[in-house]
Amino acid sequence: MLSTMQDVPLTVTRILVHGALVHGRSQVTTWTGEGEPRRRSFRDIGIRAVQLANALRDELGVAPDDRVATLMWNNAEHVEAYFAIPAMGAVLHTLNLRLPAEQLTWIVNHAADRVILVNGTLLPMLAPLLPRLESVEHLVVVGPGDTSVLDGCRPTVHEYESLLADRPRRYDWPELDERQAAAMCYTSGTTGDPKGVVYSHRSIYLHSMQVNMGESFSLSDRDTTLPIVPMFHVNAWGIPHAAFMTGINMLMTDRFLQPAAIAEMIEAERPTHAAAVPTIWQGLLDELDARPRDVSSVRQVIIGGSACPPSLMRDFQERHGIEVCHAWGMTETSPLGTTSHPPAGAEGDEAWAYRFTQGRFPASVEPRLIGPSGEVMPWDGESAGELEVRGPWIAGAYFGGAGAEPLTPEDKFHDGWLRTGDVGVISPDGYLTLTDRAKDVIKSGGEWISSVELENHLMAHPDVAEAAVVAVPDEKWGERPLATVVLREGASVDYATLRVFLSERVARWQVPERWTIVPAVPKTSVGKFDKKVIRRQYADGQLDVTLL
Amino acid sequence: MLSTMQDVPLTVTRILVHGALVHGRSQVTTWTGEGEPRRRSFRDIGIRAVQLANALRDELGVAPDDRVATLMWNNAEHVEAYFAIPAMGAVLHTLNLRLPAEQLTWIVNHAADRVILVNGTLLPMLAPLLPRLESVEHLVVVGPGDTSVLDGCRPTVHEYESLLADRPRRYDWPELDERQAAAMCYTSGTTGDPKGVVYSHRSIYLHSMQVNMGESFSLSDRDTTLPIVPMFHVNAWGIPHAAFMTGINMLMTDRFLQPAAIAEMIEAERPTHAAAVPTIWQGLLDELDARPRDVSSVRQVIIGGSACPPSLMRDFQERHGIEVCHAWGMTETSPLGTTSHPPAGAEGDEAWAYRFTQGRFPASVEPRLIGPSGEVMPWDGESAGELEVRGPWIAGAYFGGAGAEPLTPEDKFHDGWLRTGDVGVISPDGYLTLTDRAKDVIKSGGEWISSVELENHLMAHPDVAEAAVVAVPDEKWGERPLATVVLREGASVDYATLRVFLSERVARWQVPERWTIVPAVPKTSVGKFDKKVIRRQYADGQLDVTLL
Repeated sequence: MLSTMQDVPLTVTRILVHGALVHGRSQVTTWTGEGEPRRRSFRDIGIRAVQLANALRDELGVAPDDRVATLMWNNAEHVEAYFAIPAMGAVLHTLNLRLPAEQLTWIVNHAADRVILVNGTLLPMLAPLLPRLESVEHLVVVGPGDTSVLDGCRPTVHEYESLLADRPRRYDWPELDERQAAAMCYTSGTTGDPKGVVYSHRSIYLHSMQVNMGESFSLSDRDTTLPIVPMFHVNAWGIPHAAFMTGINMLMTDRFLQPAAIAEMIEAERPTHAAAVPTIWQGLLDELDARPRDVSSVRQVIIGGSACPPSLMRDFQERHGIEVCHAWGMTETSPLGTTSHPPAGAEGDEAWAYRFTQGRFPASVEPRLIGPSGEVMPWDGESAGELEVRGPWIAGAYFGGAGAEPLTPEDKFHDGWLRTGDVGVISPDGYLTLTDRAKDVIKSGGEWISSVELENHLMAHPDVAEAAVVAVPDEKWGERPLATVVLREGASVDYATLRVFLSERVARWQVPERWTIVPAVPKTSVGKFDKKVIRRQYADGQLDVTLL
Repeated sequence: MLSTMQDVPLTVTRILVHGALVHGRSQVTTWTGEGEPRRRSFRDIGIRAVQLANALRDELGVAPDDRVATLMWNNAEHVEAYFAIPAMGAVLHTLNLRLPAEQLTWIVNHAADRVILVNGTLLPMLAPLLPRLESVEHLVVVGPGDTSVLDGCRPTVHEYESLLADRPRRYDWPELDERQAAAMCYTSGTTGDPKGVVYSHRSIYLHSMQVNMGESFSLSDRDTTLPIVPMFHVNAWGIPHAAFMTGINMLMTDRFLQPAAIAEMIEAERPTHAAAVPTIWQGLLDELDARPRDVSSVRQVIIGGSACPPSLMRDFQERHGIEVCHAWGMTETSPLGTTSHPPAGAEGDEAWAYRFTQGRFPASVEPRLIGPSGEVMPWDGESAGELEVRGPWIAGAYFGGAGAEPLTPEDKFHDGWLRTGDVGVISPDGYLTLTDRAKDVIKSGGEWISSVELENHLMAHPDVAEAAVVAVPDEKWGERPLATVVLREGASVDYATLRVFLSERVARWQVPERWTIVPAVPKTSVGKFDKKVIRRQYADGQLDVTLL
C-alpha cells in the first residue's frame, strides 16, 4: 500500500531557492589576492543564478540535458553556475583544470559539452585545445583575462557579466524528475580512459543533507567553511550544495592556493571549518611554522583524497587546537563515504586510534567486504576484503558518452554494488581501515596478503630506506609476494635478517620468499610506487631475485 | 537524461540495520519507576526486531500492508515494534492511548488493524473496547499486567517475550518501494472524524536525516535524548528513527510522566536533550522549584505541540541554563516544520525575538502564505496568510479507510499543498510567526484581523480577566470581530475605555464595534476557548451585545 505523503522531488532547484530566500544573508567571500575580497550574499547569488539561466537559455540556446562545462576556480561565479545549470534542467560538467591537455580534450568531447564557462586566467590553458573540442559552441569568459588568445576560435565568445546584465530576475524553473542528471565529473583513473560519473538531483540533495549532519561535517549558518578542495573535484565534496541548504558561509580561494595565501585568508576571514587533501595541510603546517598566523577560528578540518599521515593529524590538534577529521570517498561516491569521528566515550589514545581509521559509514552508504573467494567477510577488524558500497549517492554505472548506454565494467560494479578497488577491514563497531588497493593485494592460496602492510613493516627496519611489495605468479599458491628493497646509504643487511624481522610482525605464511635489492623503487608522476613497472621488470627477468 | 547513480530506496529497514550494526553499542534505557532502569543496546533491539518480525509473520500470519497497531508507552519494546513492522513490509499504526474510547474504536476499525501490541498496564483500558474492534485478530501483551480482563475475548492473546523466544535471528527483509506505507498516525482534530496520515519509508528516512541536522535537533551518538513526547504522537517527532540513524542514546519514560519522575530520571541518567509539549515543561519547572535536582546535563529542550509561553523559555534558560527551542509541526508534517534557532549574529533581545517565533523552515519544507483573496503573500513580516506547506514528508492526502481511495478534503489540501489551518506571517529572513487559527481569523472587507492578537491586547488590560474574540457576520464588511470580555472580580470598565485601549495598540479598522461582558468564556474539554459555542450563542441571540 502506498503512503499518502506528497510526491515532491528532491532537486538542486529547491536547494537554490531555499538558500537564496531563507539564508539570503549568508555570504560567499572570494579571495582576490590583494585588497578586499569579493563578498556576495546568497540572495544575490540566487538572483544572478536566475539571470545566468535566462542567458544560457535565451542567448546560448541551452536546452534540457545539454552539458554545460565549467573550467573555473572556487569562486562566487562558480557557485552561480553550480545552481543555475542543474536548476534549468541542463547538466553541470566540472572540468579538472589540472588534467593534461589530452585528457581534458578527450573528456570534453566524450561528454559532448556545448558550452564552457572559463575563468579568464585559464584561457591560455584552454585556447590551444579549442580546435579539437568539437561539441563546444560557446565560451563564457568569467573574470579578467587575456581574451586575445581566443581570436579566430570557432566557439562564440561571451563575457559573463555582460551576458548576465539586464537579464530577467525570474525563471520558471522546470519540474524535474529527481533521478535526472544534475552534474557530472570524470574520474582520472590511472588506467584506461577517464570515466564520467553522473550525479542526480536526488543524489546531490541527499548528500547535502548528510554533509550537514553531526556525524559528518556538522555545519550551520554560524559556520564559515573554507573548501580548499576544488569545485571541480567531486563537487568540492558537496560543500556548496550543503551550504545553500543550511546557510553555511563560504570562503573561496579562487586561484590563491599557496600555503601563504591560505594562512592569510584564514587569519583575515576567520573560517570555522575547512576541507582539503593532505598535501595542502602539510604545506599550511610548514607555513605556520615559518610564519605564525592566527588560525584559531578553525574548529575542524576535513582531510580526504588520500590517507593523512597520523603525525599531521596530531600536529594540527596539539599545536593549533584544530580537530582533523579523516574522510574517505571517491568520485563515484559523491564523495561522502566515511568520516573518522571517534565513538562516544573514546578518549586519549583510543580516540586517536579511531581517528586514524578511515571512519564510520553513514546510514545511506552500506558497506560490505568481499573476500578472496567472493564471500562476504565479517566485521571483526581482521578479515580483509575488497570494499563494496551501495546507496542513493553511489554510482551504479558510468556515463557511456553522448547518446550511448551507461557503462558498467565488471571490475567496477558487482551485483548492484560499486567495487571501490580498496581492500580493508571493518571493526565490530563499523570503523573502516583500508590496508591496500585491490590490484596490489597478493592472493596467496585463497588468502590475501596486504602489500602495504609488508612494506610498512619493512620500512620500519633501520637499514631499509624504501620497500615495495608486489604479487608475482607462483605455481603452488597462485601468487606470492616479491619484496623489493632499497637500503639506506651505507647500510648492509641480508635477506634472512629481514625475513626474521618480518616473521616477528606478520603471520609466517605472509613472509616473502622472493627478495631483491634495488637502487630505487620506480614511481608514478605523482610520486606513488609504480607497481605495474616492478611487475613488468620481474616478468621480463630484469630483477636479480633471490629465492629463500 | 537520467543519472548513473544507484537506485537504492530510502527505507526504515536500512535505518534499522545500520543502527544495529554501526551503532550497536548505543542504548535505549527504559525507566522502571523503581530500581534499575532496563538497558538494551541497539544491537539487541535489532536482534529482537528480527525475532518480532519472524513471530508476526510465522505465528500471527502478518502479511505485507497489514496494519499492526501499538498501544504502548515509550519503551524499548515499542522501539522494536517501530522497526520490525515497517521493515517486514507491514504498517505500524501507533494508537493514542489518551483518546476517548469511542474515537479509539473508530480509528482501529477505520485502519482495519489486524494485530495490537499493548502494554500490560493498558489492558484495563483496551479490554472493554475489544468486542467492537472487528478487524483485530491478535493481541500481543507487552510487559506485566492483569490479563484476566482478556478472559473470553475474541482475539488470540500472545505474550510478547514468549512470542519472541527462540525465534530465528535472521529475516530476509523484503525489497521495498520507498513510497510504500511504513507507519500511520491519526490526527485527533476538533471537528469531524479523525484522519489517518500514512508515512512512507521515504518520508521517515528523509525526516530522520533532518532531525539529526544542525539546524534542527543537532544530535549525535554523544547525546542521550529524552523524548517525553509519546511514541504514539507523530512518531515521537521522529526521534526513534533519527536515533538509529546516528546512534543517539534514548532515555524512555515508559508510563512515568509525572514531573517528579521526569526530574528524577534526568538527574539519574543525565540526558543531553529532551522533547515535549509545553505543559510538561511547566510541570517540570514547578517541580524543580519545589524540589531542586541536578538537570545540568540537558543542553537543549525542544518544545512543540503548541506555542510555548516566553516566560517558560526564559525561565529554563536563565535558571537552569537550558536552551529551549520552539518547534512547529503537525501530524501531517511528520512533524518537523520549523525550529526557532536564531540566525547567526543575533544576540540578546534580538535572539530572544527570533526564539519566540515558530522558527525557520528546512529546505525540505517549502512554505507559502495564502492571503484573504487567495493570493500568495510576501515575506515581509506583516502580510498575514494561511500557511501552506509542501515537501517530501508532508501529507498529500489522508488514509481513506481499508481499501478505499485517499481523501483530499478541500479545506486540507490545495493544489498539491497542505493547508495547515494556521495563519501567520513570515519575516524577510524566513522566520514564521503564527498569529491565529484560520477558522478564527476575522475576514473583514478583504483584510484579515487576528482574533488572538485582539484577545492578547484585551487581556493585558488590568480590569480584564479573559477575552475571546470571534467573527460574526456583518452586512457591509462580510465579518467583524465580536469582543467577549470577562472582567476581573470587583473590576468595572466600560466598552468605550476598552475601545480606546485597543485603538492605541492595533489599526483602527481592527477595533471591534460589538462588545459583550460575560461571566466566563466557554471552554473545550482541553481548556481552549470554544469559539464555536460563542458564535452559536451570538447567532441565537443569547448574548447581550452592545454596538458602539
